[in-house]
Amino acid sequence: MEGRKIKVGITHGDINGVGYEVILKTFSNPAMLDLCTPVVYGSPKVAAYHRKAMDLPANFSIISSASEAQDGRLNIVSCTDEELKVELSKPTPDGSRAALDALERASAEYSEGLFDVLVTAPANQNAVQTEEYPFSGHTAYLEERFGKGRKALKILLKDDFRMALVTGRIPLKEVSPRLTKEEVMEKIEVFHRSLKQDFGIDNPRIAVFALNPQAQSNVLVGLEEEQAIVPAVEAMTKRGILCYGPYAADTFMGLGYYRHFDGVLAMYYDQGVLPFMTLAMNEGVCYTAGLSIVRTAPVHDAAYDLAGKGVASEDSFRQAIYVALDVFRRRQIEEEINARPLRKQYYEKRDDSDKLKLDTVEDE
Amino acid sequence: MEGRKIKVGITHGDINGVGYEVILKTFSNPAMLDLCTPVVYGSPKVAAYHRKAMDLPANFSIISSASEAQDGRLNIVSCTDEELKVELSKPTPDGSRAALDALERASAEYSEGLFDVLVTAPANQNAVQTEEYPFSGHTAYLEERFGKGRKALKILLKDDFRMALVTGRIPLKEVSPRLTKEEVMEKIEVFHRSLKQDFGIDNPRIAVFALNPQAQSNVLVGLEEEQAIVPAVEAMTKRGILCYGPYAADTFMGLGYYRHFDGVLAMYYDQGVLPFMTLAMNEGVCYTAGLSIVRTAPVHDAAYDLAGKGVASEDSFRQAIYVALDVFRRRQIEEEINARPLRKQYYEKRDDSDKLKLDTVEDE
Repeated sequence: MEGRKIKVGITHGDINGVGYEVILKTFSNPAMLDLCTPVVYGSPKVAAYHRKAMDLPANFSIISSASEAQDGRLNIVSCTDEELKVELSKPTPDGSRAALDALERASAEYSEGLFDVLVTAPANQNAVQTEEYPFSGHTAYLEERFGKGRKALKILLKDDFRMALVTGRIPLKEVSPRLTKEEVMEKIEVFHRSLKQDFGIDNPRIAVFALNPQAQSNVLVGLEEEQAIVPAVEAMTKRGILCYGPYAADTFMGLGYYRHFDGVLAMYYDQGVLPFMTLAMNEGVCYTAGLSIVRTAPVHDAAYDLAGKGVASEDSFRQAIYVALDVFRRRQIEEEINARPLRKQYYEKRDDSDKLKLDTVEDE
Repeated sequence: MEGRKIKVGITHGDINGVGYEVILKTFSNPAMLDLCTPVVYGSPKVAAYHRKAMDLPANFSIISSASEAQDGRLNIVSCTDEELKVELSKPTPDGSRAALDALERASAEYSEGLFDVLVTAPANQNAVQTEEYPFSGHTAYLEERFGKGRKALKILLKDDFRMALVTGRIPLKEVSPRLTKEEVMEKIEVFHRSLKQDFGIDNPRIAVFALNPQAQSNVLVGLEEEQAIVPAVEAMTKRGILCYGPYAADTFMGLGYYRHFDGVLAMYYDQGVLPFMTLAMNEGVCYTAGLSIVRTAPVHDAAYDLAGKGVASEDSFRQAIYVALDVFRRRQIEEEINARPLRKQYYEKRDDSDKLKLDTVEDE
């Protein structure tokens, strides 16, 4: 792996939002091109449009596949119709189509081994969906393609603060019916495995939130806590996972208890995202655990209110690249360890051939 | 009003929590006794117990009613059974009884005009309720007694950040059914009036949160937004109140938009309290708007995990006193303005007696 740069596939997301702005801003810094080789799945024409509209100082090379990507350059693979129309700050059928085209092409090239990690620029979750282009967000698509039949887990992270969500962006009133013991157990398990494999934490400690605000002063009165959360924490503890709770989310955040845990599991979207965004908006990153592909994204959305103005911050997108590179390297280390496991030191003790045994023990 | 100190009634809350600790710590500072005259409704015996257990440097005088309160002293009115038993970090029937006794006595003495503002030390909302002592929290009690038949509004505040809640500490699954247009309208109205009268903001700007996380990128898909929140904002706007939204809570907090508003209205407990606590835990204050009595409280609860250890921070309680004094003075100014309204400058123009008219116009 030494000697070649990690190739980062990037889908352009919603062409009417701030996607190209944060991509172009990030890679106008030469240091970023030293760090990795970016391959944008998108449209050179749309990239040029955004570059001109905001007078951004970025250059790029047009290539026809990631196999042609050059180090030290921002490479763009054209994978959409050339007649694409940009309408800033609006969800449009063209926007949905372009987002899906890019995602499909990137997925195909990843499967061919043409790049290493995927970073998705923000798409519009509520984009116009047509029968021909039923784009409903990156995560659902990737889950189906790289999830090995299981649900992915969304983890928001900044430095050592990692917040995962049991339920996603669903209406609030659907949260309680969906919260089962099995669901919470599965999320704890995926979270635990990701903290180990993707973040290199040996024995991760996970805090679990209560659903209801009444879980105060050590008194638990909520139905969902009794029926789903407490039994799930107990079951996973029995399996040797260090998980604790349920905690009342408000005092947990207020007293900064999250600093004592490697991960925090929130029960629903706003419960996790709100405190996370309040603390970390500009530099937060979204990591999708449970996929075979390493995938990160900035935490902000397509930000229609900022599109085309040149004022969007690229910090979160840049952090998303850093995290993807870190996780990729971590998984490589993990793979090497598993491929060449340490020999058990006293394995051959019974035959007394000390010399032979010492020769074959690997360095720790 | 000049020349006499504002009397602050304080209910001791849960005797098994950190209430006495934060009270005693706050008034061990002589500057606080210069600022106001505190009257604790509680138990001298329990106060002495906590003082001794944590070796706190506070002195107090035992009085039989707020009418005997001395300036420059921490006064305690004994209003509970002397046989009261303290059991640190536990909800007990004695604890509920003592909290209710103090609250009843304080309410009675306030009605007699014996003190000016009320600050409640934290009680346990999930306290043991007996038939004889059905204590279910300070707010419910005060609402019934000083709410003029209407519901109070909980406002969490720190400096110029004020977060109010449409629904309180109820199970999450009950939030959606309770959210009606009328409910949201009423909360906006009470919030608006309080920001004017209690905080002296002439034409307050209120931001209103969406309930569901889907309200992103200018696309609203939630049922409750369509049926309750949007119509409520529109109706109140027609009445001349500056209210805006609904906003997606996550990006609103993440981008710090709360700085552009005098108040933010969240739809449910964790939606408002979580980002507030994340930002402001140590110095946040809870203000109960819509009551005839000025009432504040610290934002933390009885904090059983810290009780008796001497490590609880008194910052939030001290801020609660500051806010109560501020609101009291603000209401006095408001009253004076209303009692002596400025004469209309051209009121008597028709009779041409310029001299008389100028004499009676008040200074602005």
